Amino acid sequence: MKLQISCQLDYEAYSSTPLILMLRPRSGSGQWIIKEEYILEPSVPITEYTDIYGNLCQRLLSPQGKFTVFTSSIVQTADEIDVAPNAEFVLIEDLPAEELIYLLPSRYCESDQLGNLAFQIVGNAYPGYDQVELIRQWIHHNIIYQYGFSNVSTSAKDTAYAKVGVCRDFSHLGIALCRSLSIPARMVVGYLHELNPMDLHAWFEAFVGGRWYTFDATQDYPKGNRVVLAYGRDAADVALATQFGSIFLLDMRVSVSVAEDVTV
Amino acid sequence: MKLQISCQLDYEAYSSTPLILMLRPRSGSGQWIIKEEYILEPSVPITEYTDIYGNLCQRLLSPQGKFTVFTSSIVQTADEIDVAPNAEFVLIEDLPAEELIYLLPSRYCESDQLGNLAFQIVGNAYPGYDQVELIRQWIHHNIIYQYGFSNVSTSAKDTAYAKVGVCRDFSHLGIALCRSLSIPARMVVGYLHELNPMDLHAWFEAFVGGRWYTFDATQDYPKGNRVVLAYGRDAADVALATQFGSIFLLDMRVSVSVAEDVTV
Amino acid sequence: MKLQISCQLDYEAYSSTPLILMLRPRSGSGQWIIKEEYILEPSVPITEYTDIYGNLCQRLLSPQGKFTVFTSSIVQTADEIDVAPNAEFVLIEDLPAEELIYLLPSRYCESDQLGNLAFQIVGNAYPGYDQVELIRQWIHHNIIYQYGFSNVSTSAKDTAYAKVGVCRDFSHLGIALCRSLSIPARMVVGYLHELNPMDLHAWFEAFVGGRWYTFDATQDYPKGNRVVLAYGRDAADVALATQFGSIFLLDMRVSVSVAEDVTV
Amino acid sequence: MKLQISCQLDYEAYSSTPLILMLRPRSGSGQWIIKEEYILEPSVPITEYTDIYGNLCQRLLSPQGKFTVFTSSIVQTADEIDVAPNAEFVLIEDLPAEELIYLLPSRYCESDQLGNLAFQIVGNAYPGYDQVELIRQWIHHNIIYQYGFSNVSTSAKDTAYAKVGVCRDFSHLGIALCRSLSIPARMVVGYLHELNPMDLHAWFEAFVGGRWYTFDATQDYPKGNRVVLAYGRDAADVALATQFGSIFLLDMRVSVSVAEDVTV
Repeated sequence: MKLQISCQLDYEAYSSTPLILMLRPRSGSGQWIIKEEYILEPSVPITEYTDIYGNLCQRLLSPQGKFTVFTSSIVQTADEIDVAPNAEFVLIEDLPAEELIYLLPSRYCESDQLGNLAFQIVGNAYPGYDQVELIRQWIHHNIIYQYGFSNVSTSAKDTAYAKVGVCRDFSHLGIALCRSLSIPARMVVGYLHELNPMDLHAWFEAFVGGRWYTFDATQDYPKGNRVVLAYGRDAADVALATQFGSIFLLDMRVSVSVAEDVTV
Repeated sequence: MKLQISCQLDYEAYSSTPLILMLRPRSGSGQWIIKEEYILEPSVPITEYTDIYGNLCQRLLSPQGKFTVFTSSIVQTADEIDVAPNAEFVLIEDLPAEELIYLLPSRYCESDQLGNLAFQIVGNAYPGYDQVELIRQWIHHNIIYQYGFSNVSTSAKDTAYAKVGVCRDFSHLGIALCRSLSIPARMVVGYLHELNPMDLHAWFEAFVGGRWYTFDATQDYPKGNRVVLAYGRDAADVALATQFGSIFLLDMRVSVSVAEDVTV
Repeated sequence: MKLQISCQLDYEAYSSTPLILMLRPRSGSGQWIIKEEYILEPSVPITEYTDIYGNLCQRLLSPQGKFTVFTSSIVQTADEIDVAPNAEFVLIEDLPAEELIYLLPSRYCESDQLGNLAFQIVGNAYPGYDQVELIRQWIHHNIIYQYGFSNVSTSAKDTAYAKVGVCRDFSHLGIALCRSLSIPARMVVGYLHELNPMDLHAWFEAFVGGRWYTFDATQDYPKGNRVVLAYGRDAADVALATQFGSIFLLDMRVSVSVAEDVTV
Repeated sequence: MKLQISCQLDYEAYSSTPLILMLRPRSGSGQWIIKEEYILEPSVPITEYTDIYGNLCQRLLSPQGKFTVFTSSIVQTADEIDVAPNAEFVLIEDLPAEELIYLLPSRYCESDQLGNLAFQIVGNAYPGYDQVELIRQWIHHNIIYQYGFSNVSTSAKDTAYAKVGVCRDFSHLGIALCRSLSIPARMVVGYLHELNPMDLHAWFEAFVGGRWYTFDATQDYPKGNRVVLAYGRDAADVALATQFGSIFLLDMRVSVSVAEDVTV
């Protein structure tokens, strides 16, 4: 399905402030950017670099006063996410070298401390995809989705105790539990069609059966039509907007809708 | 200046054929992509990867029959290119490691064989920018710009003898002469505002005074308002469209115009 | 000074077990590997890859039973580490893109939660090197160096409360405090001449005045003669030996001594 | 087999001269560096970086006067190289993105001009490994191995006409012919056990059947016990010693012998 996605950030800055944004989706194997806009108002100099995960990051100095960032894209997405019961656990010695980093604990995913919970959840399940799906279901059924109970410092361990959180927390817990079973797992942020209420979203991927699979513990069933903005070890790596000073986000509007056909 | 650029490639293929394209400009320090479209008609699966020079490359299998690729962007460009008389030659031992590759000879730039010509051209000029500018002027005045006398196999050495060629050949000769003086030089392909006749264009950059500077031996004076599509050692690395089979380019249309303001 | 360093790990494995090691120092701008040995006994297949930080990592499957890894090098090291009072804080907008990752919180460095302590420590110090040195001194004077009070899960925040730890904890705290002031900071593991008691060691680097500087909160004064094995965001990234199964480290011997001259 | 390899370069420089060397083998999937020495006499500052192909490169300023570089390693090598008749041609659309660069023409491999010869040589052979082996055999039987008839500017096309050359020329021709058939091919330089006369050596690899295979047109039959120093598109990328000034190589000694066992 072709999706029209957009995100508008309205800022007010007391003084000129450095911002790092990750709001430009990349074309890759799973999504194709047909059309795109990236507008700053007022216009200020901006540069772009690629981080160690391959994400496109935009750097700029906001002007003093009001400042708006508007991005919009039409993206060809997959209607379904791949589901692969029985896809096998990949032996450590067979993992591609570049995925090994996704086994390590990270700021919000203390996989070194959640092994017991993970073993409890997966029981005797067949190692690999089925374990990850059990983790996803356990989170979906045992963690309450509610705003206001977690914040930017909340980690997977915190969420495992508090049993409440938002998509970011659900993802962190899923990632940490996978890693504690030696399954590489990574954070994904982006857009999801028909997310309710609409917002930027976070989910996770696990590496089983020789490739990455998508898991989303906030949803009842596997849903496609996702647009990835960034991949990372956890939310520390994929903050869509990082500010370094006195700037306030006055408003943020996110939309996802079905796009009309684009022709030459 | 904001430029509206576009390129349309109309193909006809006897059978499904692999294509590699380099038609998506990247935002970076010198240009900012405000708006962009990348449309295939008919639509076929396409993926994108980054090559060793940081260029975005698109891979696809053309369908059998007629096939059109259309790309269009609005890009914020610099109105002037930086000019830096006396910018110094960078000692080999002070060159950043990642620029050393641009000292080496390459397919179309036999810098190992053009040292004599280079020394003749630069005479006693101050080492660095001034040498490159003398090389640029020498090419501009001594090589005739004319289509039909060079082809995809023509190298800098060929051009130095034949004294005729197009932008690609002018660039190769400039690059080879710079490298023979131990000045890193690289090929650039992209768009140039008010190029006459309008087409995709090629020029070169040389690394002097601690950074890359733009040189264009086809032009009378330094002109800004350029959009870079790709960087490489020479044309072998930056072919904007590479095909591997029986596909014919029926038509190609390139346009560059001043864009209207884009607002949120 | 030329240092002879060595590390021997004696393992016993119940069954064949994947190991990832980071025991091969790289030659770079600060150290030169003159001689090196890397021996496995019994010999088993082993491969090497480079991680995202540029560290060399060795992968192997230990055999069942006794297994020894022995590495030894003669390394040209700098006798002094650079000390640069007044080296300035680098504005976020001026940081090289590749260093931005070292501003982010990580598993053991919750910089998002240690800002208050950092501001208390640095007071009105001149932003940059002097702040980092105050942090280093504060740790040196306020955290007790003692084994047995911290473990593989202990983070900077834990150490700030417990006020006790080892070199790894000292480093994590230094890194977290720097990052909370928007100073990029990274973990370093390796060897230090005359460390007492001798062991593998950890310290940190901070990016001020346009480059990385070495800081070691475990030492009374700046000491050179260090050999770096690996860099990373924190200990999660630079574990010198990671095992994935039932293997036991029976013994570990580390030595550092002055090397004799090596000639052709 | 464990090989003891060494290379000694004796220089004399009129003045301090930049040198770039590629004399440190890397451990990887095919070879393991057990022991290594890298000695400069007199000792001068030296740094190391990784180029775009993953090769380790050493940079230094030679002192004025006599200067010696001595490298020696004990390397675990494979006794046999893999031979895979019928390994299939990989369709362009299935090639890993990172191998596409090895399809392009390069300084010494004008694959854009050698297609006719390649088609003549391979005839109706099964596409893939068998074609490469026919190319290898054709070179072995049709090109005379002799010093003094080629030089640093000699390319594959030159060799195809002159029908004489050394290992470097044999490799360039093999690479160019493979690429003209859309088979990725790359240059390899290093050591070969029992090469006669002993010297540094060059051969090539072709990507068929989903991986790289070793081919050596200078040899009668497939020989293992090779140590790779560097990979590249052709000799322009893998010069083992590049000098930028008035320095003379007085003598060069290369040795390869069977190493005794190395134990802890």
